[in-house]
Amino acid sequence: MTNQLYTISIDPLARKVSVLDQRLLPHRVEYLEVKTWQDACEAIADMAVRGAPLIGVTGAAAVALAAEKSVADSDLKRVSEAIKEARPTAVNLAWAVDYVVKRLLGMPAEKRRKAAWTLAVEILEKERQMSAQMGKYALSIIESLYLELGRPLNILTHCNAGRLATVELGTATAGIYLAFEAGIPLTVYADETRPRLQGALTAWELKEAGIPVCLIADNAGGEMMREGDIDLVIVGADRIASNGDTANKIGTYLKALAAADNQIPFYVAAPISTFDWSAKQGDDIPIETRSADEVRWIKGPDVEGTERSVRITAAEMPVVNPAFDVTPARLITGFITDRGVFAPENLVHLRQGASHG
Amino acid sequence: MTNQLYTISIDPLARKVSVLDQRLLPHRVEYLEVKTWQDACEAIADMAVRGAPLIGVTGAAAVALAAEKSVADSDLKRVSEAIKEARPTAVNLAWAVDYVVKRLLGMPAEKRRKAAWTLAVEILEKERQMSAQMGKYALSIIESLYLELGRPLNILTHCNAGRLATVELGTATAGIYLAFEAGIPLTVYADETRPRLQGALTAWELKEAGIPVCLIADNAGGEMMREGDIDLVIVGADRIASNGDTANKIGTYLKALAAADNQIPFYVAAPISTFDWSAKQGDDIPIETRSADEVRWIKGPDVEGTERSVRITAAEMPVVNPAFDVTPARLITGFITDRGVFAPENLVHLRQGASHG
Repeated sequence: MTNQLYTISIDPLARKVSVLDQRLLPHRVEYLEVKTWQDACEAIADMAVRGAPLIGVTGAAAVALAAEKSVADSDLKRVSEAIKEARPTAVNLAWAVDYVVKRLLGMPAEKRRKAAWTLAVEILEKERQMSAQMGKYALSIIESLYLELGRPLNILTHCNAGRLATVELGTATAGIYLAFEAGIPLTVYADETRPRLQGALTAWELKEAGIPVCLIADNAGGEMMREGDIDLVIVGADRIASNGDTANKIGTYLKALAAADNQIPFYVAAPISTFDWSAKQGDDIPIETRSADEVRWIKGPDVEGTERSVRITAAEMPVVNPAFDVTPARLITGFITDRGVFAPENLVHLRQGASHG
Repeated sequence: MTNQLYTISIDPLARKVSVLDQRLLPHRVEYLEVKTWQDACEAIADMAVRGAPLIGVTGAAAVALAAEKSVADSDLKRVSEAIKEARPTAVNLAWAVDYVVKRLLGMPAEKRRKAAWTLAVEILEKERQMSAQMGKYALSIIESLYLELGRPLNILTHCNAGRLATVELGTATAGIYLAFEAGIPLTVYADETRPRLQGALTAWELKEAGIPVCLIADNAGGEMMREGDIDLVIVGADRIASNGDTANKIGTYLKALAAADNQIPFYVAAPISTFDWSAKQGDDIPIETRSADEVRWIKGPDVEGTERSVRITAAEMPVVNPAFDVTPARLITGFITDRGVFAPENLVHLRQGASHG
């Protein structure tokens, strides 16, 4: 990568873990030393680390930190439950913690401490490789489009499916980072993604990497597509049903509609772990509704740089705040996965590969 | 109306003008006494008054205030140019000021002072009646839908095409106010309308009137339509081309796409003055791009109630900020005007009526 920013560092020799404190972004870059498994839980619960893949890696590191204190079966089991409760709905967290602990329980006690670190690093590497694979496939899509259009590309993304949510390249952003490194001229338009403004994180991380980026209001993307100012849309996903219906951050559906209306390719980038084969279609995916105050209050530094929250409406104004929406598969050009690119109608091949793999 | 809120008051006997200071909304209700025509210009330029119809009325009142000082031809002409420059792109302002001044110039000097007030009130009444007419036609649409569905209605609107932008009932909201008064059970969902958050004004004015309202992020409307939580969309318009392509606040197009995708009626409410018959289609309407700081900074009261601006991104983050978008006529169910409801393909009748009327 073009700079030294990292979201998590696991040092298996020094047995140290540190994470980028994402609560301070995009206004300050500070790292948090994670000294105990309780520290790790706190970092996860308080959203100092965020993004499903990154939370999983942090959970694995938490087990390694716990193993420093005790490798007794009962302690490992107790600790693993506690870690998973730091973000109970995060599938990746449970998966990573269970993976590490199950392996440890199968080993003699004297090997566990060292193995825990090795396994945490293994999970981290797995995530890194998953991003790299997705990036490779996305790059070929971006390259083709660049060859076809023969001019700098404008790519729209929504929310933060970037490096900050993962170990390195991100999901939606992986191809963008690689295309930029390959010298393909491009500008990224990042939807600000109200209410939580994760698009400001995307804009920040891309700018840090030297990639031309522009932050836009969520409302702006449709008109920009209509005017021909967007060539390609790539977003991440929270959960994908068997038929390709995709749950992602609220607002994704609107951009997919605009992309379809303007014949702009719309891709979803996600590792195979994001596919929920038990969900037949979008209606089977529950949509989380979050706090009204996420809409009512906005946080940021004031003119003097002091961080403050301001209210955009009456404190008691009724608000509905769905966190995700479902984009119907018919609006999706393809899925960029760590195992290749699949059109919605070909997802059955990914599924079959998955059950064999 | 159900409460005493007003946007402008013109008292032709006391020769006094006062306006609701909309810069303080939705956090404080304060009225501004407008003592001179220069005060009126300042109120318009600083956006203490906003919304095309209301700006026109304020401009007419400004002429009346100017006539208190001098009714000489040269002064009236000079003043009318100065008033129009307070918001040079506002078509209604120029129209209202020219209308009043032209009439005055045709009168003997001794009648002008009193006539200026009468004309200002005439403009105000014209606007009030235009809203009332639109409201009457919108009400019949809402009533039919209520009879058809037989349950409380959920209506989405975007930006503020409400009472605050007009003298009384608003444009998009006119039918909503009348339906509420007629006892039709309904809830309004107001898009917050980033970057300038005019939806917070809509939510505020409806709540003040006792109408059930919910503020939502601009991203939320698509998912709510997909889930069946919206029955009807009514928005305002800034300019409508001959073919029905409609320029309105940025983000309108995305909601029109979602409405079409979910077979939800999508109406544009606007008086005949909003139709620009010289524009053949949407591409003939120029889209204003506004300051990046409108996206970067958000203003509101902090926890102690002190008004502050906070930054959501780096001060130097590139931003593109188109203020309007164009919704193609094919996505619009109908236009609610002061002369009836017209499907896009029937706008020619409105046009013919206009040229006769």
